[in-house]
Amino acid sequence: MKILFSAPDSDWADYRDLLPHMLTEAGIEAQLVREAAPETIDYIVYAPNDDLRDFTPYSRTRAVLSLWAGVERIVGNATLTQPLTRMVDAGLERGMVEYVTGHVLRHHLGMDAHVVNPGCGWRPVAPPLAADRPVTMLGLGALGRACAQTLAHLGFPVTGWSRTQKQIDGLRCLSGEDGLERALTGAEIVVTLLPLTPGTENLLDARRLALPAPGAALINPGRGPLIDDAALLAALDAGRIGHATLDVFRTEPLPADHPYWAHPRVTVTPHVASATRPATAAQVIVENIRRSEAGAPLLYLVDRARGY
Amino acid sequence: MKILFSAPDSDWADYRDLLPHMLTEAGIEAQLVREAAPETIDYIVYAPNDDLRDFTPYSRTRAVLSLWAGVERIVGNATLTQPLTRMVDAGLERGMVEYVTGHVLRHHLGMDAHVVNPGCGWRPVAPPLAADRPVTMLGLGALGRACAQTLAHLGFPVTGWSRTQKQIDGLRCLSGEDGLERALTGAEIVVTLLPLTPGTENLLDARRLALPAPGAALINPGRGPLIDDAALLAALDAGRIGHATLDVFRTEPLPADHPYWAHPRVTVTPHVASATRPATAAQVIVENIRRSEAGAPLLYLVDRARGY
Repeated sequence: MKILFSAPDSDWADYRDLLPHMLTEAGIEAQLVREAAPETIDYIVYAPNDDLRDFTPYSRTRAVLSLWAGVERIVGNATLTQPLTRMVDAGLERGMVEYVTGHVLRHHLGMDAHVVNPGCGWRPVAPPLAADRPVTMLGLGALGRACAQTLAHLGFPVTGWSRTQKQIDGLRCLSGEDGLERALTGAEIVVTLLPLTPGTENLLDARRLALPAPGAALINPGRGPLIDDAALLAALDAGRIGHATLDVFRTEPLPADHPYWAHPRVTVTPHVASATRPATAAQVIVENIRRSEAGAPLLYLVDRARGY
Repeated sequence: MKILFSAPDSDWADYRDLLPHMLTEAGIEAQLVREAAPETIDYIVYAPNDDLRDFTPYSRTRAVLSLWAGVERIVGNATLTQPLTRMVDAGLERGMVEYVTGHVLRHHLGMDAHVVNPGCGWRPVAPPLAADRPVTMLGLGALGRACAQTLAHLGFPVTGWSRTQKQIDGLRCLSGEDGLERALTGAEIVVTLLPLTPGTENLLDARRLALPAPGAALINPGRGPLIDDAALLAALDAGRIGHATLDVFRTEPLPADHPYWAHPRVTVTPHVASATRPATAAQVIVENIRRSEAGAPLLYLVDRARGY
């Protein structure tokens, strides 16, 4: 079996020893290569920022296994007719839960005023309890759901919104256009963990950004284009949104002259919320190759019509 | 029944309407007063920063009910022979869990580098997962235990240390002097939630501050004197302790010229971690008066020998 590792050098450094080792441990005899004749390749481990764009010559390839959770760069590629899986790795989910929980608590507790306190002010005002801080999670996929449940466990009243109606213990679940307005209205902290599809691009536009409580915090570890950047900057300038913590952007790295960098109400984190961890991601890749060889259904198979 | 409210004006503003209302709801007829002849007082609701120091004339008083969790200022008062209870309120516990979880995640995620990022640097290095970040909780009372269990739920490997050996699901529990050394050794985040007693004063001295992993974070929402301030400043200067987030101090408000304010590795929070919330604290006061009148054991009765 020949597996093409089609991803940048930095990924290769992480996986070149790890993946063969784990394949061997799983009893799968395979060769992991970075180049080979396309017609000899059985599987492609793929990072959507790789150069490979024409999958037509990979006639023998039984699946394309994405190292990324977000597959919007590749899902519309007409040459990619092989089964495509996205990455849902336990490490990525845990990392996302830690990032989202940490930044929700940061905004909830008003930490920045203590971390950056040039005047050495002593103003002992305790924040409200989490129980009095409504949080809204846009997106209830594997990541959104795990984050929402952790926040609910901490005592936040959490409203979750998804395209299709869900029912999840401990959350108020809403769906549809009307549900989106209700989910946003009055929220004090909004987290966006939606996949990027034509239907979610610029989902947070000027009209919807006016719905949360005045001064609400927005946390976006999902996808940059979920937010209309100009509308967000206007809402921040007006104080309608009190703070935005953004991990993902239309262009990454975020250009040095982008207004987000200098805005006093914006925190930029450099796409670190959803880092795929090689040790746990490799398990998913190996498991999907095992399943494919055994004729079992693949994990996290992408639905092309839905877009993720 | 006459209840003396012996606490500063700011507390009076919080409780003057709330407490009578809740007493009435509980079917207890009582008068809440700020001054009266001592021999007419049935209960004293007490804040340890109040001026009242001589409890001898309160011959009729059946219990002194502290509004604070920490009673070290009053537990050694020989005139206080009435039963003394400390405050363990659900709001205080939830608030402490939120503060500790938030600041542990802040240090774990390295948030400050993003909140304060004057150079607009884009360095996408994801932190390790919580599972690889050992946390040690000193103190496993109601607050320490709740915080430790929440951190364990988030995936941190948590070691808890207490004076007497405990057994708590999901935690590695240690006790005694030898246990303290083991609990501190290699910890990457240390949280101090111990009561202040002669045995815990300056517990974190130069020797013990050298035990955690190099660059470890220290979070103290417990009591100021648990830490030898000079030793901590030396450990911070040397980088042995990477950061200290301190909520409590020997003198509060922390004096403007205290070196903690200006130290780049110290975050001062103004004693907000453990704020008693009137709505939930009043429930505890009312419940203890109800119990006392019914001859039932009081909640959170202070053990004078133990000191808390």
